[in-house]
Amino acid sequence: MDARDVQTERDGQAERIVPHDGPLGDAHASVEHAGDAHAADAHISALRAVSAPSRVAEPAEGISAEELALAARNHGLPLEALRYDVTPPGLHYVLVHYDIPTVDAARADDWTLTVRGRVRTQLSLDMTTLRSFPAVTHRVTMECAGNGRARLTPRPVSQPWLVEAVGTADWTGVPLRTLLAEAEVEPDAVEAVFTGADHGVERGVEQDYQRSLPLADATADDPEVLVAYEMNGAPLPPQHGHPVRLVVPGWYGMAHVKWLRDIALTDTPFTGFQQAVAYRYRRSADNPDDPGEPVTRIAPRALMIPPGFPDFMSRTRVVRPGPVQLEGRAWSGHAPVTKVEVSTDDGETWTEAGLEDGREGRDRHDGRDGRDGPKGSAWVWRSWRTTWEATPGTHVLAARATDAAGHTQPLDQPWNRGGFGNNLVQRIPVICLPRGD
Amino acid sequence: MDARDVQTERDGQAERIVPHDGPLGDAHASVEHAGDAHAADAHISALRAVSAPSRVAEPAEGISAEELALAARNHGLPLEALRYDVTPPGLHYVLVHYDIPTVDAARADDWTLTVRGRVRTQLSLDMTTLRSFPAVTHRVTMECAGNGRARLTPRPVSQPWLVEAVGTADWTGVPLRTLLAEAEVEPDAVEAVFTGADHGVERGVEQDYQRSLPLADATADDPEVLVAYEMNGAPLPPQHGHPVRLVVPGWYGMAHVKWLRDIALTDTPFTGFQQAVAYRYRRSADNPDDPGEPVTRIAPRALMIPPGFPDFMSRTRVVRPGPVQLEGRAWSGHAPVTKVEVSTDDGETWTEAGLEDGREGRDRHDGRDGRDGPKGSAWVWRSWRTTWEATPGTHVLAARATDAAGHTQPLDQPWNRGGFGNNLVQRIPVICLPRGD
Repeated sequence: MDARDVQTERDGQAERIVPHDGPLGDAHASVEHAGDAHAADAHISALRAVSAPSRVAEPAEGISAEELALAARNHGLPLEALRYDVTPPGLHYVLVHYDIPTVDAARADDWTLTVRGRVRTQLSLDMTTLRSFPAVTHRVTMECAGNGRARLTPRPVSQPWLVEAVGTADWTGVPLRTLLAEAEVEPDAVEAVFTGADHGVERGVEQDYQRSLPLADATADDPEVLVAYEMNGAPLPPQHGHPVRLVVPGWYGMAHVKWLRDIALTDTPFTGFQQAVAYRYRRSADNPDDPGEPVTRIAPRALMIPPGFPDFMSRTRVVRPGPVQLEGRAWSGHAPVTKVEVSTDDGETWTEAGLEDGREGRDRHDGRDGRDGPKGSAWVWRSWRTTWEATPGTHVLAARATDAAGHTQPLDQPWNRGGFGNNLVQRIPVICLPRGD
Repeated sequence: MDARDVQTERDGQAERIVPHDGPLGDAHASVEHAGDAHAADAHISALRAVSAPSRVAEPAEGISAEELALAARNHGLPLEALRYDVTPPGLHYVLVHYDIPTVDAARADDWTLTVRGRVRTQLSLDMTTLRSFPAVTHRVTMECAGNGRARLTPRPVSQPWLVEAVGTADWTGVPLRTLLAEAEVEPDAVEAVFTGADHGVERGVEQDYQRSLPLADATADDPEVLVAYEMNGAPLPPQHGHPVRLVVPGWYGMAHVKWLRDIALTDTPFTGFQQAVAYRYRRSADNPDDPGEPVTRIAPRALMIPPGFPDFMSRTRVVRPGPVQLEGRAWSGHAPVTKVEVSTDDGETWTEAGLEDGREGRDRHDGRDGRDGPKGSAWVWRSWRTTWEATPGTHVLAARATDAAGHTQPLDQPWNRGGFGNNLVQRIPVICLPRGD
């Protein structure tokens, strides 16, 4: 099966792929089911009218109504919720490209996940069959690739995350490699393409949400990819992919396809919109033809639980003089976090924070790359803490993570056109009240 | 007990009330614990530096970074989730003024709710005792008073809701009037003041979140106010007030005090910040001394599930020609919704939609004011639907609710300085694709 076929062999209302005439338009050049060329042109023109190309905000441009509409739908982790090892339901970040598909309990019983393409045995799995495979649970920290986008200058116009698009959950399901072994993948397969039930238009391209993984990643031992049907011991909530989704530990959220209904093994690399057009690091502001590099694993990041209490509107923190515990979490999708540094003078000086010596921490210390611990343990955030002697006045706090592979958070923004992987250090303005007060 | 005392008899770090010198500054004129005047002045100056007065955005001002930070923390109901009778966890709107307080399972066991002030028997109730009272469950549609704020021109700068700050849940707990009967309210009591554990600064005023209800509302039969400890049959999630909160059916969300730890009966009306300064309808843009009218019950609103599928960035909807089912929910905190009208031509013409004839619908038809149905049934949204024959081209859909008390949604914005109760009709731009396509 050629990867391009995956885009036209779908059921329901999603039968058509609309061409995209951008620099990467060949990714979507086929309009295989259109009745005639004129109708296809009219269809494309109609969609273009509501679906604009990507853009970067003007220098003085505030957040637009469109960005606000996305921010009102999707949500981040309120930073005080970093205190939980496992994020409670409703506090884990959520990003939904189109709509949450309609899947009520009755429809979930009828849900079918197909495994097809370059396999010897095509599979059609209902939820009962999926649950009959031996289940595993992995604790995974997940982050949106666009986290930090709204802090970039100039700002790419899309979901306007600041720093909060993260969460940690216990995901239960079947290892993907178990299903692929069952299906007996053909030797010429190079990728697995995952199709979700969410359907929409993006930059003129009508599509179901689709992403692929190289076969080596899809069948790896660690990180072990899951076809997950439970989050924190309960059925997946609608917004997290009910009834079944992909979980790819260590990778940004775009890889964890929700509402998963098809896995197609292909003998050519997938060039669909979310793979070849979106989710690319394009570091030049001037060259629209830059194909960019693929967005894959999570860059290291530390976040601090904002200390003290906030002002409602500015979110500036207020503390009283004296010792203030500073704590938070740090993670990386490349290798375990080995160091967190904290600054209380806006990055002038840094001191090393204590890293938790808990289960995840010890497991990670067993091996430099985290692969000696229990499965999944390397892909969970790690607690850190230190104490700050607060003195009256204004301060800016910051934290900075470094992982075992030598990646560290930048002090200058890692700008790219899509606003991906911006792990610039977090800054927390704090006012410390006068003494004797 | 005088209502002013409620603000200074609190434990922990919240022992001080900082004066507010605005037009309603007398609401917070007492700094009873300050060591000396100089320290108090320094304290106030420090807080003022991070906590600005309210303001209205400039005509061309985009959404600010501060508004975005609130939008990233708090979140609305993704409108496709209007399909659920009861909103699943994580999809119900959330607004948290300050931080979600730290209340883990162990601390919840130690949680104490006090009932004091103008009562004959002061109560100190732990969760076990609260659960020992006969429990009731009410299904309630809750909406933020600021819903619609970001659609106002000029835009009041605060949490920038569009239309999505709503949700419906089954709340289980003890009727407030049961607890007040147990405490034996003194005849001179006029209000109950509710204090939450969330602590912060707002327009220069350091405070725990506090709101009051007139005694008549606090002890009413319908709507019956609940001291709730379960949401949809499970313990309250942290962001919804764990372990216990107030639920005031029919009232905007600011009345439903979360993380409830104290109920004080007072013989004077409460003049705290959230009662006398915030949450007032001030309809003049020019008169900062206008004390305004209190924000109380929910104005009627209908919302439509956006039909078809969306463009990722603009959220414009795409449908195919032919019959399209339009459906949604409508509610009012004044009286049952009796009519929903739908327009498919941007408000030029309106046709009446069918209202559900389900349990809530029937109950409401039993009595004009909804008080003959099971308790709480009048305070739940109601389903409506109609069919639209979509034709190729662009359209703007809208829906408009009217309640039994004669309130209807306005076609012109109900502007006020705080941006409260903006129930201007929702507009949904839709493109219908060409025929034969």
